[in-house]
Amino acid sequence: MLETTIAAIGPLDEAAMSTARQLQTRLTKPAGSLGLLEELSVRLAGLAGTCPPPLPSPAAVAIFAGDHGVHAQRVTPWPQEVTVQMVGNFLAGGAVVNAFARQAGATVTVVDVGVATPLPTPDDHPPTGDARVAAPGGVSPGRVDVPGGVGQGRVAASGGVGPGRVDVPRLVDANVRRGSRDMTVTAALTRDEARSAVEVGIRIAGELIDGGAALLVTGDMGIANTTPAAALIAAFTGVDAAEATGRGTGVDDPTYQHKIEVVRAALLRHTPDPTDPLGVLAAVGGLEHAALTGLLLGAAARRVPVLLDGVIAVSAALAAAAFAPDAVGAMIAGHRSAEPGATVALRQLGLTPLIDLGLRLGEGTGALLALPVVTGAVRVLHEVATFDSAGVAEK
Amino acid sequence: MLETTIAAIGPLDEAAMSTARQLQTRLTKPAGSLGLLEELSVRLAGLAGTCPPPLPSPAAVAIFAGDHGVHAQRVTPWPQEVTVQMVGNFLAGGAVVNAFARQAGATVTVVDVGVATPLPTPDDHPPTGDARVAAPGGVSPGRVDVPGGVGQGRVAASGGVGPGRVDVPRLVDANVRRGSRDMTVTAALTRDEARSAVEVGIRIAGELIDGGAALLVTGDMGIANTTPAAALIAAFTGVDAAEATGRGTGVDDPTYQHKIEVVRAALLRHTPDPTDPLGVLAAVGGLEHAALTGLLLGAAARRVPVLLDGVIAVSAALAAAAFAPDAVGAMIAGHRSAEPGATVALRQLGLTPLIDLGLRLGEGTGALLALPVVTGAVRVLHEVATFDSAGVAEK
Repeated sequence: MLETTIAAIGPLDEAAMSTARQLQTRLTKPAGSLGLLEELSVRLAGLAGTCPPPLPSPAAVAIFAGDHGVHAQRVTPWPQEVTVQMVGNFLAGGAVVNAFARQAGATVTVVDVGVATPLPTPDDHPPTGDARVAAPGGVSPGRVDVPGGVGQGRVAASGGVGPGRVDVPRLVDANVRRGSRDMTVTAALTRDEARSAVEVGIRIAGELIDGGAALLVTGDMGIANTTPAAALIAAFTGVDAAEATGRGTGVDDPTYQHKIEVVRAALLRHTPDPTDPLGVLAAVGGLEHAALTGLLLGAAARRVPVLLDGVIAVSAALAAAAFAPDAVGAMIAGHRSAEPGATVALRQLGLTPLIDLGLRLGEGTGALLALPVVTGAVRVLHEVATFDSAGVAEK
Repeated sequence: MLETTIAAIGPLDEAAMSTARQLQTRLTKPAGSLGLLEELSVRLAGLAGTCPPPLPSPAAVAIFAGDHGVHAQRVTPWPQEVTVQMVGNFLAGGAVVNAFARQAGATVTVVDVGVATPLPTPDDHPPTGDARVAAPGGVSPGRVDVPGGVGQGRVAASGGVGPGRVDVPRLVDANVRRGSRDMTVTAALTRDEARSAVEVGIRIAGELIDGGAALLVTGDMGIANTTPAAALIAAFTGVDAAEATGRGTGVDDPTYQHKIEVVRAALLRHTPDPTDPLGVLAAVGGLEHAALTGLLLGAAARRVPVLLDGVIAVSAALAAAAFAPDAVGAMIAGHRSAEPGATVALRQLGLTPLIDLGLRLGEGTGALLALPVVTGAVRVLHEVATFDSAGVAEK
């Protein structure tokens, strides 16, 4: 599945891009006055192979959740069980990603690709069950006030997933392994595990697109997952561990210095080869990083745009670009994470982020904030009058 | 009306801000991980005097249109009649601001505060008339595909305005003067004219808020209006004309140099006193700049947030701050315009823009793109679960 997906990824359509560029000059506004939105609209025309490209609606967020053996190295003060607790929060509709997804009209699909603790199966909780019982710890739906019963998260049958209803998050059981191994001790994943996780992402991309999603949004959850992200970014870009590593949830100075040394030690142990992305993902990656890589490849193969969230997403984007350089054509950088590694990765990818507000939450939150900018860029090509049609004089 | 409005403007509510800061630390996310959105949510709680503050919905865009005597100095290659033609385009729903407003669910109100050419009155075109005949030049509705009959812009009765329907732009006739005078020859406006235009803005703010608007968005249209904006920014901040002046719609090098000299000549002729904002607006302002100043003061007096668009809006924001420094508490910088004067003004106002994508279109377009960010910042306080309620462990 990985090889056929890669083979299906091609360059942007020059003719559609040229048509979009010309249309931009005829719309009732000074040429170039929409700045980066004009370039974005041209790229999306090239991806779709037609002008105007389809409006990126409905959008679907895929949140890949996993745990990390490197957590044992004390790279974060948060306990590992927060991963599964936050999965429960997502399914109950109480997390920031849920609030932003409701606002943007995007569906939320949570994919357990590597959570350490078993999640409830549909058999444990029939589809009518309240999501508050779907995770240990007693997740409640929080103070949500959206019509349609948010908080009544239905647990989807594993293996099959459409984008579903906007206000009902879904869970997909695609667990490849109950957390990665500690990359400072051994490879985080076997090559087969890494491939399986990548293929989970490819499959989810296909199912969401088959279900009607016109744009995918990357989401992630995994306590300690900025550590493998930093290692991936250092491996694929060649920067030093210190340049690729950030404070994640906001660790203190001693933990930050220690985290840099952990990343450095893992890189020294494995000396991953950036031309072998599966090997890099196996050595120093994580299950959600690998699955996101697959999501990006799967979307690019279907010529559907993907909005990248933060540092986890852009580390996966580097892996996807190593598999298939043309995959970058389907990527839109949603925002510039406060994590320094994100800026390193975006530079190498040649992507300019749409939002830059110091966010460092993950989950897909930064990307969702940028979704209306993407929609607006495309909407201009659909709806704005030309000088001729509007009877407006030109200079 | 100006004096009572200024007297009603007060500081942000510290207690509500403190409550919002504490709530942010209890929500299921690392503290500070939403970056500038957290600060924004705190400010909006302070403005509303309650936590959570109301969601900023529905929003209302007010586009103030005016013409400029300084157009005779050839500061732009665009003919002056484009102002009235674009007003027709707004009413027909064919401009970029209409596309973005439809997407954001915001109403559009076009206010003729200073257009040189008379606009059609309700008597000329009954409410059922097609907006294509509402402006010279044969405005067509463009390629709009929104249900509800966009393009059938009804002409509102002058003098009364609610936010109206999202898909039906409205026109308000509040013309103070058919274009300003050439500021390089004489004062652009008399003090009485400037005051009348400011009071138009105050009145429009009040009517939109009375009609249910929870947030106002600044919009503007006026060929040559970046020239008075540059003069206002230089007058209120003290920077040189060269630093405050930009290329507007994208003028060439000789026109740009000439435009700087025009701004400099106007400042030398009038030496406006920045502590006398009415005097500054009269000497080197424009009718839409003065009306926007009033809109900002009127919103601040009612403690309703205003999303600033580009360089015209921020030049008016400097005038509003000179009238009432606390008015800045109601302002949110939607985006950083490509015009250099906008950055000068935002620095003096102490505002950080939410979007920075090289836009320089005006109309309210950049602010509308930022509206979902504002809504998201507030939504987090309404909808996100706390660590306690969600059963998520803390570090």
